[in-house]
This record gives sequence, structure tokens and C-alpha cells, in this order.
Amino acid sequence: MVLPHGTVRTPCFMPVGTRGTVKGLTPEEVRDAGSDMLLANAYHLWVRPGHERVARLGGLHRMMGWSGPILTDSGGYQAFSFRGEKVKLEEEGIRFLSPLDRQWRVLTPEVAVEIQEALGVDVAMALDECIPPETDRAGVARSTDRTTRWLSRCIAARKAPDRTALFGIVQGGFQADLRAAHADALVKLDLDGYAIGGLSVGEERRVRNAMVSVSTPRLPEDRPRYLMGVGYPIDIVEAVIEGVDLFDCVLPTRSGRFAQLFTSQGRMNLRHSRFKDDPRPIDEACGCYTCRSFSRAYLRHLHLAKEVLAPRLSTLHNLSFYQRFMDRVRNAVDQGSAALEVLRVEAEAWQQPYEDAGVSE
Amino acid sequence: MVLPHGTVRTPCFMPVGTRGTVKGLTPEEVRDAGSDMLLANAYHLWVRPGHERVARLGGLHRMMGWSGPILTDSGGYQAFSFRGEKVKLEEEGIRFLSPLDRQWRVLTPEVAVEIQEALGVDVAMALDECIPPETDRAGVARSTDRTTRWLSRCIAARKAPDRTALFGIVQGGFQADLRAAHADALVKLDLDGYAIGGLSVGEERRVRNAMVSVSTPRLPEDRPRYLMGVGYPIDIVEAVIEGVDLFDCVLPTRSGRFAQLFTSQGRMNLRHSRFKDDPRPIDEACGCYTCRSFSRAYLRHLHLAKEVLAPRLSTLHNLSFYQRFMDRVRNAVDQGSAALEVLRVEAEAWQQPYEDAGVSE
Repeated sequence: MVLPHGTVRTPCFMPVGTRGTVKGLTPEEVRDAGSDMLLANAYHLWVRPGHERVARLGGLHRMMGWSGPILTDSGGYQAFSFRGEKVKLEEEGIRFLSPLDRQWRVLTPEVAVEIQEALGVDVAMALDECIPPETDRAGVARSTDRTTRWLSRCIAARKAPDRTALFGIVQGGFQADLRAAHADALVKLDLDGYAIGGLSVGEERRVRNAMVSVSTPRLPEDRPRYLMGVGYPIDIVEAVIEGVDLFDCVLPTRSGRFAQLFTSQGRMNLRHSRFKDDPRPIDEACGCYTCRSFSRAYLRHLHLAKEVLAPRLSTLHNLSFYQRFMDRVRNAVDQGSAALEVLRVEAEAWQQPYEDAGVSE
Repeated sequence: MVLPHGTVRTPCFMPVGTRGTVKGLTPEEVRDAGSDMLLANAYHLWVRPGHERVARLGGLHRMMGWSGPILTDSGGYQAFSFRGEKVKLEEEGIRFLSPLDRQWRVLTPEVAVEIQEALGVDVAMALDECIPPETDRAGVARSTDRTTRWLSRCIAARKAPDRTALFGIVQGGFQADLRAAHADALVKLDLDGYAIGGLSVGEERRVRNAMVSVSTPRLPEDRPRYLMGVGYPIDIVEAVIEGVDLFDCVLPTRSGRFAQLFTSQGRMNLRHSRFKDDPRPIDEACGCYTCRSFSRAYLRHLHLAKEVLAPRLSTLHNLSFYQRFMDRVRNAVDQGSAALEVLRVEAEAWQQPYEDAGVSE
């Protein structure tokens, strides 16, 4: 995938840098972990520090010191995750009660495009309506229609189409036919790329896979296809088999902050007392700075003592693990479907539930 | 100062790594900022992860990945800072109510030495009694006598004197004659080095300087002299003029976490709204990673958003500032008293109160 700030190897996993920083890591560390492209969030950067300020500082790339491609989510998902008294969905757009100044701000499709073009990102996401999973069929249908109307307004609002690509987002809840129809409607609008949204919101994996299966084949093969907010290694492999190119997820970074580590042997809860005297690195098969430098026992100590070095070192490891896994996914894609199936079976190792017993001092 | 883990340029400023980590930084970053030697805390490491565990992990140096010299404070200061229901001072030692298991633990002089030798540090501090600043003259005198008795017990308890040096600590509150007498008493015990303790506890600078002036000349010139918990750049220069060789202070690290930055132009509160669009580095005269890479406006954003990269980058800058300042102190020592006086006058710049107005969004 060729973008203004560089070429991205696909399938690609984008670490999450919501507010213009991948929590705890420098841009060089994110890059050295094997990341080609970042995700940030237009809504959060709109609220603070403000997209106009970011533009005055030379754009998001320059402000945060990341020279590679950036994709921003528009803020549609925040309407879902903040739902309640502080969010109102209207035809005009999404009305948010700002946590900073207690003022209502309206995120319209036009504003969403304006923000993302001002940030100077490589890929802007259209404003979409993310609905709660329990929404009934009629509600889902009304919502996909609105998302399509908003997408047309996003397209009309673009001022820098050569600098900032625009991706549309397929919605449709868990209704296969509505997903298919929505995908078809978006494809007619001839976008730079297409995302599958509204998933990874608590549904079962087989439901999610079914929605990916019904959406992906309808999206053009010559445009990037992006599965938003996904996921575990197995979710990634399964979606790659369906033809998905792009992923983002907080899992490696957020898990790292909570002492949940991904290793070649599966997942580990580093707070577990069985690691208290363990002199080995998190993963003996890993060459990241954390694994080259520190023992499980020391990292466990840092987590228990709530030392800020703990989330930093754990995030660095998890992100390195994820990007190394993506190397294997890309190799498997080159080798063909049998290799992907081997990887899919292997990826079940990271689905085991965390062991939360025995985490005391 | 030649120690088992390396040679230390003096005067030396030791960053504080209480629990076996300088908050937010890797050992390489601490070293690259110009640090020769670290301070850690025997009491805290005794409580967690435990000195025996650290020993099993190869000692503190190996566990935390720091190959240079380490000095540990013994825990006497914690008896002062935790004073109240959870601490009891007795002739045997200091009884602490452990925050982890609600059990009483007794830190005797013998245990303090055992812990520090198990940690494998280059310099162990003797267990001392740190008294509240308001203690009356009779109380101060009783306390210095006890500190001397404890020191003799520390000396008797040593099992690895070639590997771990022992420093005694001059106490005596704010009573010049008691300080002088205590210094004389310690010198008779022929220690590897001497510290001046019980200062930087809220007293005025002229009082602290007077106590340093009365203590330092009585301590042998051929042994390191260490002023504990000090301080601002001007405090360091004034003590160096008196002959002090070694310092530690949380100021650069803790200030960094709270967005208080040291620069060649004085101190700055990075939360101040006047930095919200400021594209300049924290300090244009600084070549640290933070100043090479990021603007004041971005760092301010990270602090306001409570992003964990903010304390990390600010700590790195402040520590680089401090160690560069120590380079200048060492140069001034070589050049003589006029150069030190110039530096002393200049160091007043970092005494200005922080500007706390205008820190809103």
C-alpha cells in the first residue's frame, strides 16, 4: 500500500496512538518494533490539542515525530463508546459534550474531514454511525443509510484528496444481508479504501467472522480492506484468509500496561507469583530490548511496584511480538493458503484465558 | 572515586532509583544522560522484591541492568518520612509496619548491612536515626549517640567489606556543635566515606549551608563526602565549594514527572498556556533526545493528556540538564574558586519559583 508518507507492507497491523502517542513508546521504538503505519484518533486530537494547533505545529507527523503513514479514525466509534448523556446522534452529525470545557461540539461529516485533512494524515476515515450491538434490524437499516449519507457528505467536503485518502466504513450490525447491501452501496462511491466497522464490540468470534466473510468479498481487491479494532492473532489470520489487509487493535499496548504478555509459548500474566524468581526473559525466542535486557522476575517487580518502566517495557515487547507475528502472516500469504491454515491453528495458542490465580505478592 | 563497578567522576550527582529503576528510564538512558552512579533504597528493596530475591537474581546491578556503581540508602530516612503509627524507633532498630503484609519488620543495623551486601551494591549507608526538624537539643544529642552506636553495630556486621563500602552519616539536627561532635565521633571509626544527613527536610538554605560548613571540614579529605538529598543546582555548587563530592536528589526526576523543566533559561512549568503553540524544544541549548525530537507544544499536550510518554521525556531532559550541569561543576572545580563562584551566581536562575498561573487548557 503506497501512501504519501511511505509504503506499507500488507497485511499490516497499526499500533494505536490515540492522542498522538503510542502509550509509553517513542516513535523510533514503534518503528523498530516493526511498525509501518500508525492509527490515531481524530476525535481525541480535535478535543485536545485541537486540529488547528496540530496544523500550526506542522501536522500530526511532525508534531509526534512519526515519519511513516498515519490513519485516523474519525470519531464515529467514540459516539458508541461514550454513549449516554454526553453524546447525541443527529442527522447533522454527532453532538459530544466536551469533557474539557463542558461545551457541546458537533462532529459532522464535514468537520471530520476538515480535522483529518488539517492533521495531514495519509488516510482519513469517513464519519460513521456505530450502533450498540443490541440494535434491532430496523435500527441497523436506518443507521447504515445514515452512514452512507454521511459518507457522501465526507466525499463532498474533501479539499486535499491527493494528500489524504478517504476510506468508507461498512456497517450493518450482525445482519448479513444489510452488511452486504451496505458494502455494495459504498463500493459505488469509489473510495480509496474500505473498512469493516462495528465489530469487536463483544460479539462471538463466529459472528464476527461471518460478518467479515460477507463484507470482504464485495469490496474491490485493488483497494485496501481494513478490519477495524481487531484483534487477537487468530482473528487477524482468519481475516487475512478472507482478504483483509489492514488491522488496528489496542491489545498489544493495553495488555502490556496490564502485565499481560504475548510470547511464543502463549500468553502470560506477569503478575503471577510463579514468575517471582524467574530469571528468564519474557520470551526466550524474542530479541526485543525488553527480552534482551530484563528478567521476568524484575519486570514482575516493576509491575507490582507500579513503576512506569513496567508498562513501557511490556508494551515494547508485546508490540514487537505482534509485528513479528505480522511478518509471519505476510510470509504465509506469499506461501499460500496451506501456510495460512498452519498459522491459524498455531494462533489458537494466544486465545487461552489469562491465568489470574496466584497473582499475589 | 574508584568503586567495584567503575570509576565515578566527582563531584557526582546520583539519580534516584528507589525501587531499582529510575522512574521511566532505561539504564542506558540514565547512563547516556551522563550518570556515573545511581542511588537505590535498601528499605524499599527489602520490602519488595526482597533482598534475598535480588541476590538470587544475581544482585541489584544485574537485576536492573545497571553496570555502574550503586549506592543504597539504608532506610533510616524512611523512618522519618513514614513517621507515625507505622514506625517505631527503638534501640534495637527501626520497627516498620509493612504496607504489603501488615506485619512488623525490624530494620536493625545488622539487617541494614545484610540487605545491602545481599544487593551487592558498591556503597552501603549505615543505618541512622533521622529525626524530625523540630526535635529539641537533648533529643538531637540522644539521637546522634544512637546513630553512632548503630554505626558501630553496622561495622561489626559487615561480611563483604571489599565488595561493599560503608559510609557513616553525620546527624546533629541544626545544632552546629552537635554536628561537629558527631562528625568527629564518626571519623574515629575510620569509614570508607562520610555522609551528611538529616538536611533538606524543610530548613532554610542558610541553615543547611551552616550545617554543611560545620560538618564537611571535619571529614577526611581523602574519603568521599556525600550530602544526602540535595538539591537544587545552587545547593550543589555551594556544597561543592565546601568540599562535598556526592549528591542525590529526586528533583530532576520528580520535577520532570510534574512537567517542571530545568533549562538554560531557568525553570519552566510546561503546563503553562503560553507553551500551547510553542514549536521550540524545551531548551534550545540542549541536545538530549527530548529536545532533538519534540516541541514544547507537543510535550505540553502529552502532560495535559496524562500520557505516560510525558514523564518519560521530561525526566530524560531534566536528568540530562542536571548531569550537564555537573560537567560544568567539575570543570569549575578544576579551574578554581572564581569559576565556582561564577557558577554559584548563575545557579540562582533555577531558584525562581515556578509560574503556576495560566496552566489551564
